[in-house]
Amino acid sequence: MSSSITIRDIAADDFGHWRRLWTGYLEFYKTEVPEAVYETSFQRLLNGNDQEFHGLIAECDSTPCGLVHYLFHRHMWKIENTCYLQDLYADPALRGKGIGRALIEAVYQAADAAGAPSVFWLTQEFNYQGRMLYDRIGVKTPFIRYNRGQA
Amino acid sequence: MSSSITIRDIAADDFGHWRRLWTGYLEFYKTEVPEAVYETSFQRLLNGNDQEFHGLIAECDSTPCGLVHYLFHRHMWKIENTCYLQDLYADPALRGKGIGRALIEAVYQAADAAGAPSVFWLTQEFNYQGRMLYDRIGVKTPFIRYNRGQA
Amino acid sequence: MSSSITIRDIAADDFGHWRRLWTGYLEFYKTEVPEAVYETSFQRLLNGNDQEFHGLIAECDSTPCGLVHYLFHRHMWKIENTCYLQDLYADPALRGKGIGRALIEAVYQAADAAGAPSVFWLTQEFNYQGRMLYDRIGVKTPFIRYNRGQA
Amino acid sequence: MSSSITIRDIAADDFGHWRRLWTGYLEFYKTEVPEAVYETSFQRLLNGNDQEFHGLIAECDSTPCGLVHYLFHRHMWKIENTCYLQDLYADPALRGKGIGRALIEAVYQAADAAGAPSVFWLTQEFNYQGRMLYDRIGVKTPFIRYNRGQA
Repeated sequence: MSSSITIRDIAADDFGHWRRLWTGYLEFYKTEVPEAVYETSFQRLLNGNDQEFHGLIAECDSTPCGLVHYLFHRHMWKIENTCYLQDLYADPALRGKGIGRALIEAVYQAADAAGAPSVFWLTQEFNYQGRMLYDRIGVKTPFIRYNRGQA
Repeated sequence: MSSSITIRDIAADDFGHWRRLWTGYLEFYKTEVPEAVYETSFQRLLNGNDQEFHGLIAECDSTPCGLVHYLFHRHMWKIENTCYLQDLYADPALRGKGIGRALIEAVYQAADAAGAPSVFWLTQEFNYQGRMLYDRIGVKTPFIRYNRGQA
Repeated sequence: MSSSITIRDIAADDFGHWRRLWTGYLEFYKTEVPEAVYETSFQRLLNGNDQEFHGLIAECDSTPCGLVHYLFHRHMWKIENTCYLQDLYADPALRGKGIGRALIEAVYQAADAAGAPSVFWLTQEFNYQGRMLYDRIGVKTPFIRYNRGQA
Repeated sequence: MSSSITIRDIAADDFGHWRRLWTGYLEFYKTEVPEAVYETSFQRLLNGNDQEFHGLIAECDSTPCGLVHYLFHRHMWKIENTCYLQDLYADPALRGKGIGRALIEAVYQAADAAGAPSVFWLTQEFNYQGRMLYDRIGVKTPFIRYNRGQA
């Protein structure tokens, strides 16, 4: 089913595809970001710094069809870092082929390789399509997110 | 009401009080951490590295009565960092005096000073006491947390 | 899309189809009921008493393919009754054809006709397929259900 | 702790106290009802009909200090009725004395006596004070409520 999906690290010449896919993701969350964020975040994905997000691209038949971003950061409760998976997206035209699962599993592998196997992500309670996958590949916790009001 | 509460950065000689307060916090979450985590996490709180958690201590009449930890990390959607408030605790014997509110507001100020004014935190859906405060000082989002199963 | 779906009141000779469909519903909730409940509940559906549940059958190309049960009962906050929609089911092999929507809309019409236009139902938070429909045809409330423990 | 609390059936001469207490309840839900609803609902509470809500009054030192309403209605999944506890209220000036618990337990007893021991109620997800009690005296389910939109 997911036999034609390849997951690889994001590369410098992915900007166009990455921009297209990430815009689809942001539109799902009914948001948009200024051009400076596209440029800065993309450069950070590539710079190899430990503090930065990493990015993976899914290719379906050699065409980028999905992406995921993940960040390692400290966790007070353990020595090793934790892995925060922030953005997950698959081309809607290619849903149901296992792109999302393949991307999450690739993050799991990257987390294992980094010695930070705890991976978590946040999703809206009403993201039914996403949660159908997440319930199979992860575990729902009772934790909910609060934001500072004005920020 | 909160007139006798002082908030200050955690200091090297706070280990005993910090250990006591943080243990209370961990017990609230029905968890515990090995001694190496106490030692490592405390050293990290003090080392001043940008990647590390920071810590604040609340003092009630000159005695440590609460703590909070917070971390700045990247956020794909913006240039500036976001601020993740991970642990918040007030001595149960002194609840209702505004310790929690004073600690969160101090994190807000630290986030403003760092140019990373977005602050967020996670709490269990059934943490009623906490949420009574959070609803006044923050905004509930529809985001829920998933964890990788085995990690 | 739902052109071939017909909604009609349940009738005395529907027992076989009703039993099959309702069993599918109960299996979705990982439960089962004794034979006496099938028999008693079916007789009650048919007896026309105001205190009893009513039942509707959806037919797809003349074959029963879905059902819904609804009950009018008192509500302290208003003169007229409220309408409690308890069981909604569509044959899984025929999902996506609008059976669920047609059944709920038929209950809305029955409620209007009865002068009790308020309709509500309960669903599990993780019933994603159902909620995709309910979000379009109804409004999520912040109400959650508690049960007596031992009952 | 709850030694001075007495629970008794609502009586015809309770209208004034009942009106005061129920108004407090409705204000908690930021709602109000017309005078005709006060009158009709009170008469229904008293008329003894099986289809009607029943009412209990809590007395603290001989003064009405709380109320609860409950209704028996059909449940498709069982022969016996289920018991829907709709309104629960304790005078805010007397909270923490066990009024709410005593009222719920009295409904449990009434449900047992009626041969309909299943009791359930709905509450807003953010009713923290209520849920502190409900978590001790009942069981949270994953069921959430949807309403017809316009009704």
